[in-house]
Amino acid sequence: MSEIREDPVTGRSVIIAENRAGRPSDFERPGMRRIAASCPFCAGNEEETPAAMATYRREETSQNQWDVRVVPNKYPAIQVALATHSTADLRESKETYGVHEIVVEASQHCATITDLSVDHVGLILRAYRDRMLELSKQEQLSYALLFKNSGPTAGASLEHVHSQLIGLPIVPKDVACEVDRAREHLESTGKCVVCKLIDRELGDNDRMVEQSTDFVAYCPFASRFAHEVWIVPRRHAGRFETTGDDQLAGLARMVRDVLKRVEFSLNDISYNLLIRNPPFDTFHDDYYHWRIEILPRLSSIAGFELGCECFINPVSPENAARRLREANS
Amino acid sequence: MSEIREDPVTGRSVIIAENRAGRPSDFERPGMRRIAASCPFCAGNEEETPAAMATYRREETSQNQWDVRVVPNKYPAIQVALATHSTADLRESKETYGVHEIVVEASQHCATITDLSVDHVGLILRAYRDRMLELSKQEQLSYALLFKNSGPTAGASLEHVHSQLIGLPIVPKDVACEVDRAREHLESTGKCVVCKLIDRELGDNDRMVEQSTDFVAYCPFASRFAHEVWIVPRRHAGRFETTGDDQLAGLARMVRDVLKRVEFSLNDISYNLLIRNPPFDTFHDDYYHWRIEILPRLSSIAGFELGCECFINPVSPENAARRLREANS
Repeated sequence: MSEIREDPVTGRSVIIAENRAGRPSDFERPGMRRIAASCPFCAGNEEETPAAMATYRREETSQNQWDVRVVPNKYPAIQVALATHSTADLRESKETYGVHEIVVEASQHCATITDLSVDHVGLILRAYRDRMLELSKQEQLSYALLFKNSGPTAGASLEHVHSQLIGLPIVPKDVACEVDRAREHLESTGKCVVCKLIDRELGDNDRMVEQSTDFVAYCPFASRFAHEVWIVPRRHAGRFETTGDDQLAGLARMVRDVLKRVEFSLNDISYNLLIRNPPFDTFHDDYYHWRIEILPRLSSIAGFELGCECFINPVSPENAARRLREANS
Repeated sequence: MSEIREDPVTGRSVIIAENRAGRPSDFERPGMRRIAASCPFCAGNEEETPAAMATYRREETSQNQWDVRVVPNKYPAIQVALATHSTADLRESKETYGVHEIVVEASQHCATITDLSVDHVGLILRAYRDRMLELSKQEQLSYALLFKNSGPTAGASLEHVHSQLIGLPIVPKDVACEVDRAREHLESTGKCVVCKLIDRELGDNDRMVEQSTDFVAYCPFASRFAHEVWIVPRRHAGRFETTGDDQLAGLARMVRDVLKRVEFSLNDISYNLLIRNPPFDTFHDDYYHWRIEILPRLSSIAGFELGCECFINPVSPENAARRLREANS
């Protein structure tokens, strides 16, 4: 028997269909061989990217070296942009701008951040926080998404560990909808929907992966992807960039740990990681509660998902959480 | 300069960024070699699928053969299902059911419907219409999506030409949102948003791919995918399954023609095709206007798209339409 589950945060429905895992395939799983001879993100090749906007190093790293480096994307999805508000009757365009940055997460060639130390991952999260704070001050930007494509199946074109930050002069519809849902929930019940869900997940316990003083990691009830994990601050917090230094150190440990569990149990799979934050446009912090989503990319996004944005997930979050808990992180 | 464009039908924003096309990649494009020795969809292997619910044949096909065959999916995403309505406070589950059917579109092994005759494609569309009509009468179903995954990058697991029909006991959030938008548009302006857009596209002309008496094919202003094409009935029509026989024959010609243009200009790319219909739950036909979407899968769906449902499209719909018009269909 399959299950249709609705996610209280996003309103999305998913189909959990574990019987789908056994179906046959005509095609070989793509190998996605690495064919590049050199890497623009390795130390020594800094001139292949635009000049750094910020660099970070650990205490033990020498002064003329770096561990994390933020650069503008050489092939930006957005920079100067024409934004068109469009109805059936009219199109109003105005020139505006966006931002597309790359966080190069190590100076040595390395394919996964789980090969880096907890301290190093902490430095990466600090870069995320600093850049997000910086973008939040830019008046023309309404929203920013920090995301990582790890592995070719997750859309990575370069192997060297890196993340991307895109700042937009608009709020995407999907983000606006979720913020509206969160606001309505607070207004009608007096509570943040995510705060309530954390209590529920801690009570149910069968989808929990890890917990610490400040964060919980669990497979959401209506996971879109097999082995999807959300990492959420335990105490209400509107936006990622307000996370304090101590919390950030604990978060680094948990992110690295959860990714190790994912890699171990899924055999080095491609995944996306993203930070879901509210828009900059106004104050949403009372009802919005930020999160990290880790989305392993085992199954493809096909016509059904694109046609009605309802995902078919062949592994229940309860089974996924059990495997992740058992994984040797 | 990139562009941010908003789609008046769905409300989605996309980023058109043509400079992205030139960026480097570490990885070889996956070949997705076919490794299967036999095919469950070929004539002679009928016992490898459940018994047919309907078969179709052209006049010239002999009585004991078939050209199109509809079977229940052996690995259904949904059949008997537990549907859970979920808020932060409660989860209410009830047993319900869904439908997952396969339309096998030829008896001979064949990888693309453009290799079939226009008559044959007409027979396929007739099967789509019959099954959609049948599902619309099933009281427990609220919505159905007809979709095709063609090629492994589009999520196909079997190569033999086929489509799928999933009937759901719920209306996915994304579909409900679009129907609400369409209703609001009719209420505030007295007109169907898609009818108005067709006039506009015919006037602008730079995104048109083909037109006939009954249908237009164009690259939508806010295309999510490079070379995306929508095929839309020229006169207002709420749902696909009301299409008459004559119109269906013309539609078969256009669908085959547009797919040939897509295959020719993109070198046999994977694509999804889907029929976007309103829910069955109530009468939406006054304000909803059905369409076919053809979504070529050149670029991957990565963290940004999953994180905020805003797609980055490296080819403007105007350039895509020009290439498709010039393609030797």
